[in-house]
Amino acid sequence: MSKVHKVEANIETVKWGYFDNSWEPILEVESGDIVDIEALNHQSGDAPDLLFDEKIKEIYEHFTDRNMGDHLITGPIYVKDAEPGDVIEIKIIDMKPRMNYGSQVLANWGNLSNEFNREETIFIYEVDPDKNITYPLFTYDYPRPINAPGLVTEPGSVERKPVKDKITLPLNLHFGTAGVLPAKDGKIHSLEPKNFGGNFDNKNFVKGTSLYTRAQINGAGVFVGDSHFAQGDGELSGTGVEGSVNGRIQINLHKNKKMFKNIILDSGEHWEVHGYGHTLDLAAHEAAVEAVDFISHRFNISKELVYSTLSAKGDFHITQVANGVKGVHCRILKEAYKNLEANDESI
Amino acid sequence: MSKVHKVEANIETVKWGYFDNSWEPILEVESGDIVDIEALNHQSGDAPDLLFDEKIKEIYEHFTDRNMGDHLITGPIYVKDAEPGDVIEIKIIDMKPRMNYGSQVLANWGNLSNEFNREETIFIYEVDPDKNITYPLFTYDYPRPINAPGLVTEPGSVERKPVKDKITLPLNLHFGTAGVLPAKDGKIHSLEPKNFGGNFDNKNFVKGTSLYTRAQINGAGVFVGDSHFAQGDGELSGTGVEGSVNGRIQINLHKNKKMFKNIILDSGEHWEVHGYGHTLDLAAHEAAVEAVDFISHRFNISKELVYSTLSAKGDFHITQVANGVKGVHCRILKEAYKNLEANDESI
Repeated sequence: MSKVHKVEANIETVKWGYFDNSWEPILEVESGDIVDIEALNHQSGDAPDLLFDEKIKEIYEHFTDRNMGDHLITGPIYVKDAEPGDVIEIKIIDMKPRMNYGSQVLANWGNLSNEFNREETIFIYEVDPDKNITYPLFTYDYPRPINAPGLVTEPGSVERKPVKDKITLPLNLHFGTAGVLPAKDGKIHSLEPKNFGGNFDNKNFVKGTSLYTRAQINGAGVFVGDSHFAQGDGELSGTGVEGSVNGRIQINLHKNKKMFKNIILDSGEHWEVHGYGHTLDLAAHEAAVEAVDFISHRFNISKELVYSTLSAKGDFHITQVANGVKGVHCRILKEAYKNLEANDESI
Repeated sequence: MSKVHKVEANIETVKWGYFDNSWEPILEVESGDIVDIEALNHQSGDAPDLLFDEKIKEIYEHFTDRNMGDHLITGPIYVKDAEPGDVIEIKIIDMKPRMNYGSQVLANWGNLSNEFNREETIFIYEVDPDKNITYPLFTYDYPRPINAPGLVTEPGSVERKPVKDKITLPLNLHFGTAGVLPAKDGKIHSLEPKNFGGNFDNKNFVKGTSLYTRAQINGAGVFVGDSHFAQGDGELSGTGVEGSVNGRIQINLHKNKKMFKNIILDSGEHWEVHGYGHTLDLAAHEAAVEAVDFISHRFNISKELVYSTLSAKGDFHITQVANGVKGVHCRILKEAYKNLEANDESI
C-alpha cells in the first residue's frame, strides 16, 4: 500500500534558481508513494504583505545569493530503485493555493516588452477559491528593472493603483517547474526547460495529470516548484499568475519503458509531447518529430500514418515564449488510437 | 426577413487559385441573408473515383490553367451597401460533407518533409457521418512531386495500400479559405493568408462560428472554399483531410465598427485573433499585438491590463505551418470580460 509523506517548504527542503545532482535527498519514497508537498513562488516578494507568511519570509531571508536563477523548487525526493533510463511519473492528485494572492509581471523579457517601452509592471491577483477564479486586484510600476529574482517590494515603497475593471479568469493551478535532477554535474540554471523537465511551464500540468520523464541519476531526485494560479498557452508577458501552492503528488517508477527526448504529459484525454528551441519554429519541429516517434513506437504503426493523423488531429500549442528557450507542445487525442494495441515498452 | 439563396459549385461560380477584384458577382445579398453554398477541394483528384461527382469532374476539366495557385473557392457574393472599411461577418449555420471521402497529403512542403526524405504520400480518408468520425482508408506514394494543384491520379495508376490500423479521428468540418476580395488590382495568389481572409486555415471556423473581416471594395465580394473534414492546429504535413462540403452561411454587414489588421473568429465562447509571419515567432507576436489592441478597444481598458490578462488566460495556438506565411491565433475567453461594457464601435 502506498505511503503518504509530508514535505513542508522550508530552508532545508527548498532550493532557489538551479538544479544540482549533488543535493542530498529531503525524502526517499517507494514507487506509488504519495507526497504532500508545498511549492513556493519566487515572485512572492511583489506584495509581501499578501504573498508572504512566516515560512516564506524566512526562506526569502535565508537565500540571499540568488544570482544564479529564478525558480523556487521543493526537493529532491529520491525514488527507491530508480536508475538512469527508468521512467519517472509525477502524478498530481490535488492542488490548493497556499494563500489567495498571486503576482503577474509584465516583464522586460516579455513577448511585447518593446511595445510597452520595456517598462515593467506588476499586477497582484486575488483568488476566489469558491468561484474557482482569480482577478487583478491592483497594479504598480516596478521601481527598477527586474534583474534579480526574489526582490521584495514593500507596500509603502510603490503606488498601488486598484484595478476597477472586474475581470474574472478561471483558476488553473499548476506547477511551472517539475522533473528530476540532471546527469550533468554542477549547478544547472533553472530558467530554460530541459529534457528532464525543469521550467517547462505547461499550464496543463494540473490535478489529474501525470508528467513522464527519464531518470538521469540513481534515485532520480524529483522536484516541483514555480507554482502558478493561472497561465495562458504562451505565458505571453513573461509570467503566469504566480502563487504558492500546496500539492499532493504520487511518484511512480516505470522500469523498462521507452521515453523519447523530452517530457510527456498525460491528461487522461491527451498525451502532450514537448519540443524546445530558440525559435518557435524549431520548438514546433522538435515537438512534431517527438510526437511522430512516440505514437509510432507506442502502437507499432508507420511514421507516415502517424504524420498523417497528427496533421488531421494533432494540436500544436505554444507552451511558453518566456524562458529563453521557447516551447511548443503537441496535444494528441488518445481516443483516436483506442482500437490499437499498445507496445509493452511504451509509457 | 432574411432571404435564402442557393449557390451551386459550377464553372460559373467557382474560381481556382487566386482572388481578383474584377470578378463579376455570382450573387448579390442583403445583410442578414442566408446562402446555401457548395465548397470544393482542390485535392479531389487524388481519388477521382471517390472524390469526384459529375459537377466536380466538369470543373476539373474546365480549369486547365492552374499555374497560379491552389484553392478552389466559390464566389464572389456581393453584399448590398457594403463599402470599404465596413465589417463583413460570415457566419456558418451548417456544414455537411458533399461525399464521404477526403484526401490528406504528406506534402513536400510539410513541416517534416525532410524527415520523410521529401517523399510525398497520399492518405484517402473515409467519413462516417453517423459516428462523426473520419479514418484513413488507403494510402499510396505520389508518383511525382506535387508541383501543380488539381492533378488527377487515376485509381489504376498507383498502388493503393489499405490502412489496416483502425484509427478514428473526430470530424471537424470547416472552410480553410474564406473572406472578401482584395482592394489591390490583379490576380492575388490564394496560398498565403491575407488580412482580408484567404487561406487562413483555422480549424475552428466551424458551424456556429463567425468570421469578421473588413470590406476592401464596394460590395465586399464574399467567398468560401478549400473545405476540410479535419485538421489539427498546425496543419502539420501541409494539408488537412481535404474534402468538399456543402455549407449554409449567413452574411452580415456591420457599419461603423472598428476592425484591426487581421480576421477575427467568434466561436461564441472565444474570440480568436490572428497573426501571420514568415516565422511562428513573428506570427505569434502579431497575434499578441492584435489581441491586446482588440480587447483594449472593445472594453476601453488599459493595454497593460489586457497584456496581463492575456498572459494569464490568452491561449496562443499554431494555426498552420503549411502556407508559406505561418499563422498563430490567440484564443481569448469572452467570459473573462463579461462584467465589462463593450464599446459600441467594436465588433
